[in-house]
Amino acid sequence: MTPTTTTTTKTMKALVFFGAKDIRIEDRPFPQIQEPTDAIVKITAACLCGSDLHPYRGSTSPKPGYIMGHESISEVVSVGSAVKTVKPGDEVIAVFTTQCGHCFYCDRGLSSKCDQSVVFGTSALDGFQAEYARVPLADATLKLKPEGIPDLKLVLMCDIFPTAFFGVKNLLNKFEPEQRTDLVELQMGCGPVGLLAIIIAKALGVKTVFAVDYVTERLKLAEKFGAIPINLKTEDVDAVLKKATDGRGPDGVLEVVGSKDALDTAFKVVRYGGVINSIGYQHSDLPFTGLDCYLKNIILQFGRCPAASLFDESLEVFKKVQGLLDGFVDLELPLSSAVEGYELFDKQGARKLIFRPHDLTEPVHHEHK
Amino acid sequence: MTPTTTTTTKTMKALVFFGAKDIRIEDRPFPQIQEPTDAIVKITAACLCGSDLHPYRGSTSPKPGYIMGHESISEVVSVGSAVKTVKPGDEVIAVFTTQCGHCFYCDRGLSSKCDQSVVFGTSALDGFQAEYARVPLADATLKLKPEGIPDLKLVLMCDIFPTAFFGVKNLLNKFEPEQRTDLVELQMGCGPVGLLAIIIAKALGVKTVFAVDYVTERLKLAEKFGAIPINLKTEDVDAVLKKATDGRGPDGVLEVVGSKDALDTAFKVVRYGGVINSIGYQHSDLPFTGLDCYLKNIILQFGRCPAASLFDESLEVFKKVQGLLDGFVDLELPLSSAVEGYELFDKQGARKLIFRPHDLTEPVHHEHK
Repeated sequence: MTPTTTTTTKTMKALVFFGAKDIRIEDRPFPQIQEPTDAIVKITAACLCGSDLHPYRGSTSPKPGYIMGHESISEVVSVGSAVKTVKPGDEVIAVFTTQCGHCFYCDRGLSSKCDQSVVFGTSALDGFQAEYARVPLADATLKLKPEGIPDLKLVLMCDIFPTAFFGVKNLLNKFEPEQRTDLVELQMGCGPVGLLAIIIAKALGVKTVFAVDYVTERLKLAEKFGAIPINLKTEDVDAVLKKATDGRGPDGVLEVVGSKDALDTAFKVVRYGGVINSIGYQHSDLPFTGLDCYLKNIILQFGRCPAASLFDESLEVFKKVQGLLDGFVDLELPLSSAVEGYELFDKQGARKLIFRPHDLTEPVHHEHK
Repeated sequence: MTPTTTTTTKTMKALVFFGAKDIRIEDRPFPQIQEPTDAIVKITAACLCGSDLHPYRGSTSPKPGYIMGHESISEVVSVGSAVKTVKPGDEVIAVFTTQCGHCFYCDRGLSSKCDQSVVFGTSALDGFQAEYARVPLADATLKLKPEGIPDLKLVLMCDIFPTAFFGVKNLLNKFEPEQRTDLVELQMGCGPVGLLAIIIAKALGVKTVFAVDYVTERLKLAEKFGAIPINLKTEDVDAVLKKATDGRGPDGVLEVVGSKDALDTAFKVVRYGGVINSIGYQHSDLPFTGLDCYLKNIILQFGRCPAASLFDESLEVFKKVQGLLDGFVDLELPLSSAVEGYELFDKQGARKLIFRPHDLTEPVHHEHK
């Protein structure tokens, strides 16, 4: 099935990256099937993710001109001839990367390292903050929308819930099964990924989770989800943890911030033989030496979540905890307000927000229940 | 039971560290019970380990005056009042560190990080290259000599066999069980620990082990034990591995050398999502950044082997592979020839050698069968 001739001349609205603090709603050509494995989707909801702020803030400088966003729920409009698992009319959720689904890495649960893995909403591939989008490798990238989960929650499954699950799972599986429930975990960072990681850690039975941040509102939610909050501004992280662990430090640290400072704190406080799992985008040198690592008997893990590989497994946990996620997405905006949405998100005026490219004209606020 | 008055005035022969390339056989006081948890042992065999060469070569500079060596088989002469598991007359093997046996770390299989863990043959604790030695925390440090294993093989259980086992076990347990047998492993270094690690990896079912070194004799043994040798001097490690793995690189790397160069090679060649386990004594900065780690989805593990914790588990594997270890220790010397022994070992004139402080007057050579 290919788009009709009329669609090739249509345009659509899209949020385009031009440079730091320079993003614009523009008219763009309606996306076309380019490969037999492509699908074209009509965006129902496109999320704004913390990592969209890297180019927005100028901390990365990608080649401009691309459509932003890598989290979406959508409806399939047309599919290429080789697409087998979705058809026009299907409601779907896209994971934040493309992948082939059948290579060495895809077979081993590491879809984020598939040769054909590209992140949506980058200079390499237009994203979802638009009315429509092209989805390459649709069979492995689009998942049929599961029953009974409202879009406002389901969007978390595009990236940040599987990412948080990836972090917690890989932290836990470094310990013998009989040690897992008694673990003292430290989490560096309580943004959206961090809060979900607390929910997941508790759901997977971790007894004690300490959560570090400097934003009071985030720490309140961390506590609500079962963590013991530590405010970086007013408390001595190391002292609090030493007191709680007979002077040893936590067994494992989940680092979700992606900063060298957070990794430095993680390394300093973790106990001998402990585990640091960094799911943040680490982009500096490392704040410890080989000798430090040897002396600490440390285990370290880094890297990008393979959301396609982990989708089904993390969805099972998602279904169990979704009752906690009312109001997690706290703002819906029409796509026409996307520029204002970025400004607000940048200033932490919203925790997690989505754009509705169709059928929404006014902002809708949600409160955490 | 305490030593008799006569023993307190006795002296014994011991190899003492004075500085780089300055070690001497000296008369030392006969060791005494100092704590109720101590034992005094008569050394039957004391091994020379690669790490003894660090101070000998001047690459570390410990405070001089201590008796060297941390690998021994011995007979218990006397024990303090609190010692329960060994008695005078017992033939025993000592692991290379002391440990309490019942703290948080000892309970979790990490005896090398026990608060009371001290390495024998350092400025902190006299070692075993002597006629007699004091063994603190004897209950957790001395193991009754298992039946049916000759001393010439059993000495490997003091340190290097458990250390090699620690490395291989921790490399394998980072992979899902169903992936373990198909692994392509790279091993950096084919000294004694490296050769044992090859034997262990093959015994645990690893299909393909590549082994890197630049010493032809070592590479020949590596091949004999089932590895595919790569000569650093004449071959391109990365190219060989890429060719064998469809361009990906090995799944895991065991780094037994403890050099920054070896770790650098390990990181460069390992595949995405791969594992590097470094059991070498890393003492430099790290040859990769946080961004490198993120992009590689790497898992890293470092640190000293908890030989006491792993003794029983590694002994089970040892019993299965001991048939391969005839001639692994290739030289026995009287303790009076210890200075010459160090010189020879330093020049790789012997693979693994032991000193016999009693009942040996001439060197005995063994050939690998």
